[in-house]
Order: sequence, then structure tokens, then C-alpha cells
Amino acid sequence: MGDAARARLGVGMVGYSFMGAAHSQAWRTAPRFFDLPLRTEMTAVVGRDKERVTEAAERLGWESTETDWRRLLERDDIDLVDICTPGNTHAEIAIAALDAGKHVLCEKPLANSVAEAEQMTAAAERAAARGVRSMVGFTYRRVPAIQLARQLVAEGRIGEVRHVRAQYLQDWLTDPAAPLSWRLDKAKAGSGALGDIGAHVVDLAQFVTDQSVVGVNGTLETFVTERPVAASSSGLTGEAGEGTGPVTVDDAALFFGRLSGGGLASFEATRFAAGRKNAIRLEINGSRGSVAFDFEDMNVLHYFDGDEPGATAGFRRIVVTEPEHPYVAAWWPPGHGLGYEHGFTHQVVDLVEDLAAGRAPTPSFADGLAVQRVLDAVERSSDSGGAWTEI
Amino acid sequence: MGDAARARLGVGMVGYSFMGAAHSQAWRTAPRFFDLPLRTEMTAVVGRDKERVTEAAERLGWESTETDWRRLLERDDIDLVDICTPGNTHAEIAIAALDAGKHVLCEKPLANSVAEAEQMTAAAERAAARGVRSMVGFTYRRVPAIQLARQLVAEGRIGEVRHVRAQYLQDWLTDPAAPLSWRLDKAKAGSGALGDIGAHVVDLAQFVTDQSVVGVNGTLETFVTERPVAASSSGLTGEAGEGTGPVTVDDAALFFGRLSGGGLASFEATRFAAGRKNAIRLEINGSRGSVAFDFEDMNVLHYFDGDEPGATAGFRRIVVTEPEHPYVAAWWPPGHGLGYEHGFTHQVVDLVEDLAAGRAPTPSFADGLAVQRVLDAVERSSDSGGAWTEI
Amino acid sequence: MGDAARARLGVGMVGYSFMGAAHSQAWRTAPRFFDLPLRTEMTAVVGRDKERVTEAAERLGWESTETDWRRLLERDDIDLVDICTPGNTHAEIAIAALDAGKHVLCEKPLANSVAEAEQMTAAAERAAARGVRSMVGFTYRRVPAIQLARQLVAEGRIGEVRHVRAQYLQDWLTDPAAPLSWRLDKAKAGSGALGDIGAHVVDLAQFVTDQSVVGVNGTLETFVTERPVAASSSGLTGEAGEGTGPVTVDDAALFFGRLSGGGLASFEATRFAAGRKNAIRLEINGSRGSVAFDFEDMNVLHYFDGDEPGATAGFRRIVVTEPEHPYVAAWWPPGHGLGYEHGFTHQVVDLVEDLAAGRAPTPSFADGLAVQRVLDAVERSSDSGGAWTEI
Amino acid sequence: MGDAARARLGVGMVGYSFMGAAHSQAWRTAPRFFDLPLRTEMTAVVGRDKERVTEAAERLGWESTETDWRRLLERDDIDLVDICTPGNTHAEIAIAALDAGKHVLCEKPLANSVAEAEQMTAAAERAAARGVRSMVGFTYRRVPAIQLARQLVAEGRIGEVRHVRAQYLQDWLTDPAAPLSWRLDKAKAGSGALGDIGAHVVDLAQFVTDQSVVGVNGTLETFVTERPVAASSSGLTGEAGEGTGPVTVDDAALFFGRLSGGGLASFEATRFAAGRKNAIRLEINGSRGSVAFDFEDMNVLHYFDGDEPGATAGFRRIVVTEPEHPYVAAWWPPGHGLGYEHGFTHQVVDLVEDLAAGRAPTPSFADGLAVQRVLDAVERSSDSGGAWTEI
Repeated sequence: MGDAARARLGVGMVGYSFMGAAHSQAWRTAPRFFDLPLRTEMTAVVGRDKERVTEAAERLGWESTETDWRRLLERDDIDLVDICTPGNTHAEIAIAALDAGKHVLCEKPLANSVAEAEQMTAAAERAAARGVRSMVGFTYRRVPAIQLARQLVAEGRIGEVRHVRAQYLQDWLTDPAAPLSWRLDKAKAGSGALGDIGAHVVDLAQFVTDQSVVGVNGTLETFVTERPVAASSSGLTGEAGEGTGPVTVDDAALFFGRLSGGGLASFEATRFAAGRKNAIRLEINGSRGSVAFDFEDMNVLHYFDGDEPGATAGFRRIVVTEPEHPYVAAWWPPGHGLGYEHGFTHQVVDLVEDLAAGRAPTPSFADGLAVQRVLDAVERSSDSGGAWTEI
Repeated sequence: MGDAARARLGVGMVGYSFMGAAHSQAWRTAPRFFDLPLRTEMTAVVGRDKERVTEAAERLGWESTETDWRRLLERDDIDLVDICTPGNTHAEIAIAALDAGKHVLCEKPLANSVAEAEQMTAAAERAAARGVRSMVGFTYRRVPAIQLARQLVAEGRIGEVRHVRAQYLQDWLTDPAAPLSWRLDKAKAGSGALGDIGAHVVDLAQFVTDQSVVGVNGTLETFVTERPVAASSSGLTGEAGEGTGPVTVDDAALFFGRLSGGGLASFEATRFAAGRKNAIRLEINGSRGSVAFDFEDMNVLHYFDGDEPGATAGFRRIVVTEPEHPYVAAWWPPGHGLGYEHGFTHQVVDLVEDLAAGRAPTPSFADGLAVQRVLDAVERSSDSGGAWTEI
Repeated sequence: MGDAARARLGVGMVGYSFMGAAHSQAWRTAPRFFDLPLRTEMTAVVGRDKERVTEAAERLGWESTETDWRRLLERDDIDLVDICTPGNTHAEIAIAALDAGKHVLCEKPLANSVAEAEQMTAAAERAAARGVRSMVGFTYRRVPAIQLARQLVAEGRIGEVRHVRAQYLQDWLTDPAAPLSWRLDKAKAGSGALGDIGAHVVDLAQFVTDQSVVGVNGTLETFVTERPVAASSSGLTGEAGEGTGPVTVDDAALFFGRLSGGGLASFEATRFAAGRKNAIRLEINGSRGSVAFDFEDMNVLHYFDGDEPGATAGFRRIVVTEPEHPYVAAWWPPGHGLGYEHGFTHQVVDLVEDLAAGRAPTPSFADGLAVQRVLDAVERSSDSGGAWTEI
Repeated sequence: MGDAARARLGVGMVGYSFMGAAHSQAWRTAPRFFDLPLRTEMTAVVGRDKERVTEAAERLGWESTETDWRRLLERDDIDLVDICTPGNTHAEIAIAALDAGKHVLCEKPLANSVAEAEQMTAAAERAAARGVRSMVGFTYRRVPAIQLARQLVAEGRIGEVRHVRAQYLQDWLTDPAAPLSWRLDKAKAGSGALGDIGAHVVDLAQFVTDQSVVGVNGTLETFVTERPVAASSSGLTGEAGEGTGPVTVDDAALFFGRLSGGGLASFEATRFAAGRKNAIRLEINGSRGSVAFDFEDMNVLHYFDGDEPGATAGFRRIVVTEPEHPYVAAWWPPGHGLGYEHGFTHQVVDLVEDLAAGRAPTPSFADGLAVQRVLDAVERSSDSGGAWTEI
């Protein structure tokens, strides 16, 4: 599609660290590999520190900067606000942006509480009535292997879902000397492993099965309750500074639940799984087969077809890099795998296509709220000794 | 050691199907590869049907037969009773044998209820005072990779245990048309996946960490409540006969718990994991490293040494077939792997060495009771909606 | 089948170290799990040292001993001679035994030279005319996953064979301080990695494809030409003694060849692949699919079905432990894997069934000769700088 | 580094299909994640068809277009010519560009013949004397796991190299109905699997070991000699048109060689390995350890440390996504893997840093020539029945 034929979409991004870098790469890359129906522009990036945001804009490729996100809402050249800040700021920015008529892409978790997420969802629904769209950034949905898993489940290839086994294992807090960061501060992050990474596997489980978790029994644990303060506030990890401070979030979350279709699901999220770097594992067993995924081998989906004769049945290691696979035709030949950041590019592609088509993007704020309610139920269950807690 | 120097150990085995075949192979093989301190003899096998037990004795290599297990207790040439029958018969046979002065090797689960297991443990303690020994058959403890895992944990190589992740996944009930067997009958089997296979992973978790599970939250599920009756009563699976009957045990069990050392543990046992045949998976994450095992690749232990520099740290795939590894020197050169049945041979070796040395073998009936108490707590927790249940 | 209905087969085994232990376990185990048509008896074992062979007989379960293998040929209670000695003795023993009317099972490689192998094959053919049978011990053929691979190829499931990729990787000579053994002595072993382990992968390639290698280009290499003498002569490895001696065989062999059906095959055999313990790897690519095997995961076959739609095509990890799989029904339930020694048991089963049925067993001496000719061509090619050498 | 402080580097790229897209993404991405010492600009892209190159420029992000590559040499705003065309055009463009004082990045294989490669290398040396630089695009060198492998070898962590095992397996020609493309035309591509993908593994073997291949025995094979003509000339595969034409290159290449340090190396390159999509496999066994890599799991390096005690030795699965690993600190947190295209970005980074520092980039044209000489020796060896052919 030629430029002349395409309407412009001006993007303003709030925040520019880990998530900001990933989103920037996506906005920059999407139009180069996909024939987008809108002409996306990286119009402005927002950060509180003028000097640092200016440096970020140059490095990440944004045309202008702001030091107050509210300025984005006043600018006519901004059509969409992309929120890449910690969870405690999501509600205020998103609701204001939607009310101002800006589309919103909001990083996960949607919010730090169910109450905030409900307000955001209400705002999203009000906005949708006016054609203003919103999306929450569960990008792992857009790994081709995960999309393929969902397709196979939807086509009935694994039959009725009996088991979901979902884990998100990291190890960056294993060392008690690892310093504090905003991710360990309940006021900013809302929760720890539960909301940061558990949110992803809850969303993946619901997305791939197209079912919801209806109740849980759960427990939370903080193994190391006091850590060195960080020398600098940015980054996932970093150098230790002087003194120590309390960890106010969970280090690990363990829960099991029931799916709306009657299956069982077990979940684990931890930052203490020594040797597991970013192991997002999802296995779903059905009455006719299974699918299994591990992000440490992200271009692969394992699929067991229970209809195969016993002599030749086995988990197939599908290298999800064929042109038939979701998103793949736009990229490289078979076997030339994608990486972590490609999920963000696919997110931009889907979002822009939905905006152009006037469709509601997914995952919606309501989907984000659904995840939030599961997380909240896990916290409440944990507080009551792991008792059954409905959602 | 020459025969003359070794005392005789006459063995009487009760039951001769799946477990009986495995035990027979072990009694037959152990003295061929290991220098046993006692001269073991496969003296008698017991079965209710004269014709069938006679056929079994010939096939499996037992010198004589009995149709009533009580006869073993009267025979002077029987020193040890090896119990390979369903769980509902364990208590009666084991207690009588111990009281009659016969050593006892009893298949797992120790019993179908905590009450029975307590009586058996009391009997074992009474017997021990007279030098009469007992052991419960958690043979997976004797897979070399599991022994190595325990050694590494005991040596502090993974530090303080944070997480245990234990699963036992099978799929032989996935098909709703799979017929009933005694394993689906609560009266005989006591429980379903929980006691049959969950018992193994509870024991492995406790064995490898040398800690106990102090409380659980759990849920049980029976996905298929009515199945065809079996054409014949024997065997793990088989042909369907006419009519249907109820499944009175669980198809799957999901629980998490706390370890005595403060770590978290998650457990799953299911017969509905399509494509997973006998996947006994155990991963333990500690403050300094991790170990991971999967019985589908039983000659391998994965070990992560967290003290390695980051650039070269990674899970080591240790092929546990070196002469340095437990039990291995007696077998084949490196890389020539062992199979399922070797655990039973190692069990015989350890048991016979303990008997000769006057040591109490492990796992003891008390160890079996400890597992039983965990299983019981899971059932009680499940009955109360998954509430926290101490052990 | 009852004992009365079965004719007796008296076995005399020559040699009792590594291979002798494996064969003994097979003779002992086969009748316990398989319904053999002959009543096998472990009648006599032969070794030059009276004391040591007596100890071996007791340990391995043989009824009598001889110190000269020629005595077996005179004994009426010996029906079959099982040769487990180094390759330089095979021809003499096997030919004499066949001529004396004894069936022969001969360990691989059939002989240390083509000339010897030809004489043995001629003897085998003479004997066959009188109903006297012979077999060479390529036991890896009898790993269930290898049998399944052959079945799939025979059924056309991978189409026309394009590539064979066969490797046998060990590492026990990596350390230059590893001492000498008979396996490093050309006079006894004939060749090094080539004949000891390369022979296996040549046989597997020919067996699974049902094609023969028609010519090769090859090279041999001895990386360490002088080693410590061994403190004792037995065993695969062992303690070093005083002084050093020359290594007179190859440490590694590398060759590629053409198959009779037009495909390409590459082979490698080495004892210098640090970290690879007994990695027998075989991958076959055809016009419609592929099969792949690695003995380090011996209960698994990987199968790629090229007729699958691209979106769900992938190598299937078939756990070859289902009752439908070759040999497996006699053993354990699905997922309860077999070990190295089971191939030897299957070899006994097939041999005994062939003897009872009056069929020629396979692999025949002619099959062993075919392998020998390939090995010989590799040596000749290596001598001529790797020139093309027909077989 | 601020823009003002950095000199400009204007890039002109010739060709814009598969390689052109990969290079464009690299030029676009490198300055966003790495602090480049030059200010790179995507100044011009060249294609013979005005309309198509214009469309490509817009899609891939180039500022201007040319329809004749010679125009680049006349433009002052072009500092570097990036050659992404088929091999038969490399020599002419590269030599002219270098002689015109433009730096050159040339896709592999360097040329279609040794003679051309020699002329190019001579031109590169002439140019270097004037500070004009050249580099050949073996991008797989810049996969972090490959860099780590080289580091470990260079540090002596695997000792003296005994074996290299290098394979590049694809399957896109398995189907005889796959149509012709320029890659199957000797006039354009020079050779088939040998030069297209074999070149990569020859380079990787030489790069990781820091040794050269000094001689080879090899064979080439064309399994399918006639194929449908393609409906369109572009792309790796595509729709079939009418009629058939000859395949004039090899489908597969098999060769083994000697390394300058005395080790053995085996190589295979094929487009007929059904189920293998882009399996670049490299294993190196040394006297103290091993490294192993498979591009199908590109973020992982397997490392065996032979100095480990036997009980805990094993191949470590190093997830090469730690900040300590080459290139990784610029990207994402641990476990967030990279994809195929990142190698191209790293190539740009290294090239630009070398240009700014006045260093000769690697791999140089001489390195490309060294690979070309190996490929040529393989062809000559194949023509002489696989005879030993020195390089």
C-alpha cells in the first residue's frame, strides 16, 4: 500500500527503559516487514528528566520529547498513547488518554489492583463507543508458536482440555545480594513474581485454551525479605548501593485452579529457579492430544496427536518458522528463527490492523482485568491459607 | 565372596503380575552383578490360583508355589516375604509376616490408609527390636540419577532448597473407553493417581531433599467417572468387557506444600497427560544451584551450578553411567544405559546388604507412613476445598 | 509352552568379561520374559584360567567350565557356541564349531580381516546346508527404536533414501594417560575405533536402509601413538602400569560412501569425542521423511513425516515403549524404558526362535562379512589418501 | 556519543531481496541498540527495475535509489557499498567499489570461483593500503553462542582440537517438484549446497578453531537433475511455472579434511535433509573438552568441561543471553533470546567500529578466499573420485 493511501498514526510513548526499548523496536520494525494499513510515526516519547528523555529519543528514534505525559493528550499529532511505565501509573495515564480520545496500548499488568483495572476497563468501554481503542500488552500471545498452539486447541486437535501446566521461571533473585529495584516495591509494582511474570502465564493459559480460570488455591512466598538498596533505580538488576531495605512483594507464587471448561490448571511464577532464565512453560493436555511450549526454545511448539497409531505417536517438535505459521511469512525462510522482540512487532501489526479496520484489538482491557482478577484471587487465597477462592 | 561364606536368604514373593515380574528379575539379577553378602534364593511364590501360580513360578524362576500367603510364615526356608499385591492386602500380610519373624519388602504405597500404615509401622518397630527388618518399595529412589541428585543436595551443591517441582504424568486413562481395573477401584487401590504414582513423587521429593512435607493444599479430580468393565482383571490396561462401572478413585491430583526447611513444593500426578508415558519429573531449585530429572530420560541428571561464572553457567546434562556414579560400576561401560527394572535390582542389593549388616533398610515403613500421611492430607484438603492441611 | 514340549538348547560360551557378562544376562533373562520355543541351558563357560573361569561361572550362572574351547565341540550337551572373545580368535573357534555341528553366535566384528571373515562365511554356508546355524552379534539392531526405524523405512514412510548420517562417538581415550588395552593392539583387535564401534554403525546403516555401502572414501587417525601399559589386561579401561607401549590401531575413522540405492552416507567412529559416552547416532533422510536415533536416549526414535502439512510437520519424539513396538510387549508398561543389555536378550530370543523354526538367523556371517568389507575398504582408502574404493 | 561528535557513514546497498532485507534491518537497528562511533545513513539502494527498487527503498527505509550500481561509486554521499546480489556479480562490483575508494561489505560466498576471489582479495589489499576496508558477510560468526565457542577454544578450555563435526542441513529441495531458482543455476550461484550453505560451516569451523582446513576428500551429488521452472525468479522457493530445466549445481556436499593443527574435520551441506530447516550444527571435540552448537536452538551453546570430576561432568546447556556474553548486554535481560537477524546487526556494529578505529574488519576478503579455496578443493576432489586434495 502506498503512503498516500494510508492515514497517519502518530504514536506517543510514555517510559523508555526495558519496555520502551522493546516497543520502540517494534514501532520501527513493523512497517518494514508488514504492509501496515496506517502510516505509523514515532512522534513523541515522554520522560520526567529532560536530558535523559532527549538522549532516549535520539537513541530509540522518536521525533520529539515531552516531560509530562499529559502533554501527549493535548497534541493533535498524537493518535495513540503507548504506556511503558510501572503498573502504579497505568490507570491514571490510560484513563486520561482514552477520555482524551487517544487510543491506548498499555503494558501489562493492566494495573496494580482490581479496582484500578475495573476503572480502566470502564474507560475503555466508554472510549470504544466513540471508536477509541485500547489494548493490553501481553506480547507472548504473539509468539508464533503460541498462536499455533491456540489454533490447534481451537480446531479441536487436542480435544477437551484436561490439564494446563503453566510456569514462568526466572532466577535473578536467587542471590540474596541482588539489590532492590522498583519491581520489589509493592507501591510501584503491585506484586512481585505474581504480577510481573505470573500474569503472563495466566494470560497465556486463558488465551490458548480460550477458557477462563474460575477459582484458585494459591500461596505466595518471599524467601529474602531484606536486600541491599540499588545504586541506581533503573534496570532489572544492577549494582548494590549502601544499606538494605525491605522486599515488599512476593518472590514466588504457586497456585492451581479450575478452568471454565472443567479442566485443572497449575501455575507457578518464581524468580528463584536457579538456572532458569526466562522459562515460560505451557503444557496443555487434552482428551485427544497435547501441546507444549518453552520460551527457552521459543521457535518450537511440541504437539502430540493422540489420534496417531500408538507405534508412531509422539510429540512433534514443530519448528514454527514455516510460511504457513502465524506472522512468519513476513520474515525469513524456514529455520531462521525469531527472537524475543518479534512479539512486540507482531503486537504493533495486529493493533494497527485493528485500528484501521475499526475492530476492537485483543487482548482488551477486559482481558487484562480478567488476569488481574485471577492474581487478586491468588493473593486473597494466600492470605487465607490457600483456601478456594472464586473469581 | 564364596558361597560357603554366605548365609542363605530364602525369599517368598506374594503376587506375580507387573510388580512380581519386576521383583523376580531383581532377585534373579542382583547376585549376578553385585557381590551380595547373603546367598539369595527364590524359594516360593504365592498366588490364589494353583495353575496360574505354577505357570508363573516356572516362568519367573521360583522354586516352589503356595496358594495361601500364610503358608510362607510357617516355612523355615523363607526368611523374607516380598509383597507385590494390591495395597488393600499389604497391612495384613506385612504385619503377620513381621510378627512371624520374617523380614518384609512391601510394595508401595505402604497401605491404603494412614491407620493401616501406622499399624504396619508399629509392627515394623516391634520386629526391628528382634532384628527383623522391613522396607517399602519406592524403587525410583534407586535410579542412579536420583541417588546422584540426593548426593548433590546433601553436599550443599544447590544450597538451601527453595522450590521442588514434582510431577508424575501418564496418559493411559486419557481415552474414556479405557476399561476399569483394580487400580480404579478404591476398595483395592485406596486411591488413584494420588496413591499409585503421586506417592512416588512425594517420596522422591522427601528423599532427594532430605526434608519432609509439613502441610499441603490439594485437589483431586475424576474426569471420567464411568468406564467399561474389563474383560479380564489383570494387567494395567486391557480389553473392555460388557457393561460399565464406576471409577471410584481420582484420575489426577494437584497439590502444593511446604517443606520442613521452608521451601515450596508443587506436585502433580495424573493419568490424563496425553503423550506422557511415565514422565516422572523432579526439579529442585536451591540458593546455589538446581537439579532436574525426567524418567523419560532416566540415565541423565541435569545439574546447574550457580557458582559457575555467568558466561559458562548452564544446566549440565550428566549421563549417569560413569563408574563413579551410584550402582553403576557393577554394570556396563559409560554411556551404556540402564532401564526401568534396574531400580528393583538395586533395591535388592541394598536390602540384602542391610540385612547382612544388621542395619535398618530404607525407605522404612516409617518413610512409607510419612508418604501416606501426605497423601491423606491431600485427600482431606481436597475434601475441604483445598484448604491448608497440616501433616 | 511347557518344558516337556520344548527341546533343550545347551549353550557353551567362550570368554566371560564385558561381552560375556552381557550374553550371560541375556541367556538368563530371555526365557523369563519371552516364551522361547527351546529350553535354553547355560551349560558351560570357557576361559583359559581355571580359577578365574570357575569364579565367573558361579557369578554369571553357568553350570560347568572348560579351559579349552575345543572341549565344547566334543560335548554332546553343547548345541551352540557363543563366542565372546577378541576378534583375532573368532575365525578359528567359529569355523571349528560349525564344522563340529554346533550352532554359533559370534560377537562382532566377525573377524579381524576380510580373509578370515570369508572363511567363516564359507563355513557358515557349509554348516547351513546341514541345518547348523550362525549369527553375528550386532545387538544394536535389536534396540526397539532401531527395529522401528527399519520398519518405517521398509514401509516407504521416508521414501527414497538420500542421506545416512552415522556416528559412534566415545571419549575414553581422550586422555593421553589412559592406558593400553587389547582393544588398542592391532594383533588382537584388528583395528581400533573402526572395527570396534564403526562396525556397529556400518551394520546399522545397512540394516535400517536395507541397502549396502558400495564404495567409500575414508581416513583413519591415531592421535595418541604411545600410551602407558595397563596394570591389568582386562577391562575397557583401567589403571596404568609401568612404561609405555605403542597404539597400533586407529583412534578415529572418518568415511563417506554411496549406498546401493544411490544415497550418500557419512560415517564417523571415534574414541576422542570428549563428553560423548556411547553416542550411536543414526539419521536417515529420505524423499518423504526422516528417522533419527541417538543411543544416549535409546528408548526414543525421532520420525519426520514429510507428508504432514507444513504447519504441523515436525520430528516426532516416539517413546518406543508401547506394546505395538518390537519386543516391548514382553517387558513393562509404556514409558518404563529398557537399557543397554536388553538388545542382547532380544538377540537370544530371535536366535532361539530361528533355531527352532529352522530359519537362518540374521545378521548372518555374510552380513558380518559385508561389514568387514566396508571396514577393509576404509582402511585401503585411508592408505591411498582417501581415494574412492569400491567394495 | 552525540551525533555532532560522529562522522557520517553513507551506505549504498546493491540488491534488496532476502539478504537485502536482512542487511536493511541491521543498518536500521544497529544504531538503536549499540553506541556506534559513526553516524550510519541508509543512503541508497540499487536495483535494475526502477519501480521495484523504489518500492523496496520505501519498504526497507533507504533514502534514494539507483538502477545501476556503478552510480554508487560516483556519489560522494556513499562511503560503503553493501553487496547483497548473487555470487556471480560480487567480483565486478566489489573490485570497482574498492578501487573507487568505497568500503565494501560483500555477502558470502565471496565469489563463484577462486580466481575471482583472488582478484577481490588483491583489490582489498590494495584498498587497505589506502584505508579502504572490506568485509565478507559470514554473519553466523556473530551469533553470540558462536562467539562464546570461539572464546572457549581460544582460552584453551577444550584443549587441543581433535574433531570438528560441521553440518548445514536444509530440506527445501527434498520435493522433486520444488521449482528452479537462481540458486540452482551454476552460472549465477557458482555452486549449490556447497557454496550457499557449506561455505558457512567451513567458515565457522575455521573461525571457531582459529585453524585452517589444509586438505579435503569430498563428493558432490545432485539427486534431482531436472526441475520445474519457477513462475517468478525471486525468492528462495516459489510457485512452479511451465516446463522444466536442468539443475546445474550440487544438491549435497560431503567432505572431510584435516585442520592445520592436526585435527580431523567432517562437513556436510545438503538441501535434502527432510525435516531439518536450517540446522547449522557444529561440534568440536578437544583433548580437554567440547563445544556443540545447533542453529535450530541458536541461543544455546553446549560446553563439556573435561576437567570436571566424572561424577558431575556433562555438557552444559549455556543459554547465551547473559550480559557477560558477546553482544548481549545491548539487548534484553537473560533468557530473552535473539533471532536470526541479530547476526546481521552485530556485523554492522563490528564493521562500523572497525571503520572508525581504522582496523581491518574480519572476516576479511582473504578469509572469504580461504573458504573459497576449500570449496574449490572439494569440487576438484569430487571430480577425481574423492581423492585427497590439498588447499
